Amino acid sequence: MTDTVLSTEAAPRLNRRQAAKVRTRQKVLDAARSLFAERGYEPATIRDIAKGAGMSTGAVFANFQDKAELFEAVLTEDMTRLAEVVEAGAPQGEPVRQRLLGALSAGYHSSLDQLPLFQAIVARSWFQPLAAEMRARAATKNLLLAIGGILQEAVAKGEVNKDADIRLLVELIWDAYLSNYRRAAYDEWDAQALSDHMGKQIDVILAGALSAK
Amino acid sequence: MTDTVLSTEAAPRLNRRQAAKVRTRQKVLDAARSLFAERGYEPATIRDIAKGAGMSTGAVFANFQDKAELFEAVLTEDMTRLAEVVEAGAPQGEPVRQRLLGALSAGYHSSLDQLPLFQAIVARSWFQPLAAEMRARAATKNLLLAIGGILQEAVAKGEVNKDADIRLLVELIWDAYLSNYRRAAYDEWDAQALSDHMGKQIDVILAGALSAK
Repeated sequence: MTDTVLSTEAAPRLNRRQAAKVRTRQKVLDAARSLFAERGYEPATIRDIAKGAGMSTGAVFANFQDKAELFEAVLTEDMTRLAEVVEAGAPQGEPVRQRLLGALSAGYHSSLDQLPLFQAIVARSWFQPLAAEMRARAATKNLLLAIGGILQEAVAKGEVNKDADIRLLVELIWDAYLSNYRRAAYDEWDAQALSDHMGKQIDVILAGALSAK
Repeated sequence: MTDTVLSTEAAPRLNRRQAAKVRTRQKVLDAARSLFAERGYEPATIRDIAKGAGMSTGAVFANFQDKAELFEAVLTEDMTRLAEVVEAGAPQGEPVRQRLLGALSAGYHSSLDQLPLFQAIVARSWFQPLAAEMRARAATKNLLLAIGGILQEAVAKGEVNKDADIRLLVELIWDAYLSNYRRAAYDEWDAQALSDHMGKQIDVILAGALSAK
């Protein structure tokens, strides 16, 4: 009986603490995201992230082991959000080319204000421990599924050949999509220019997979 | 007269000094390459590069301003070499698909023992000053010209459509080629596996550009 009373009393106290912990964690994440998005990975220091979140570096380290873990948490949140944007961006009832382009164009439009963050994500994907790479792939999975889903629907509608290698097409489209961010970083292309180029790339990649009329 | 004598006397002395400087520079470059190829960029220190070259860090800094400049010099040498390998790797008289695949497969076979160097090159290409990016693009130019040359020949032979966007095809092939190195880094693919995959990617990218028989 005493145990039950204690635990019912303890529960809300624990929840308040947990809720505070979640809020603190999110505050750190948001400060980290805006600093990574502004400067990229290397120049963003834990000290400045803590300052941005209005807390001590100790409070940051109570939530995240190091900058790499913090970066990974930001990456996961952002890839989840980007997958939603891409999925929602595909116009209903359009041909597969327009659906893919609408989806990826929505991706560019929603992410270009965080360009240094994207550059940092791709740069780090070339040099990270295997476990971190596997977590990054898991975080990107919904994005690739969104692109694959559009292609699968097109197969079902007879727009794309049944024997097309969907996985290979998704990979080529995703590589081209990511690669284009370098045009934004170094050649000042905006989201519209990136989308126009992506349209040409989609045409090349789909050319052999589209069903003959 | 005295001036002429002085300058003819000075010339060989200067040349010996220059030759020694070139040898020293090359020794530093070779030590840097093998350390970058073994560890990648960040963990390779100037101290260890100097040690590998059998000289003081001061002697390294007499030749290169910093690690970034040293890395760029290695990149330039290696991309020049890779362009030669790729150009020589395209089998004469074969269809365009085989010529491209032979060229790029030669690239994988000649570079995979320096995988961390390649990872570092691609990672840094996402986050460098604009001037460094422009120099890196200049260093890669011959490689892209080698791929483009194979496609141009195929246009001349009527294998590839005259209206194909060669530049776009080269870009997609190069993006796919580079992207595959990640399979070597994280999934333990060897040069043969990378080449097999590249063959499938070439088939997709060329599908719309090949002339109808």
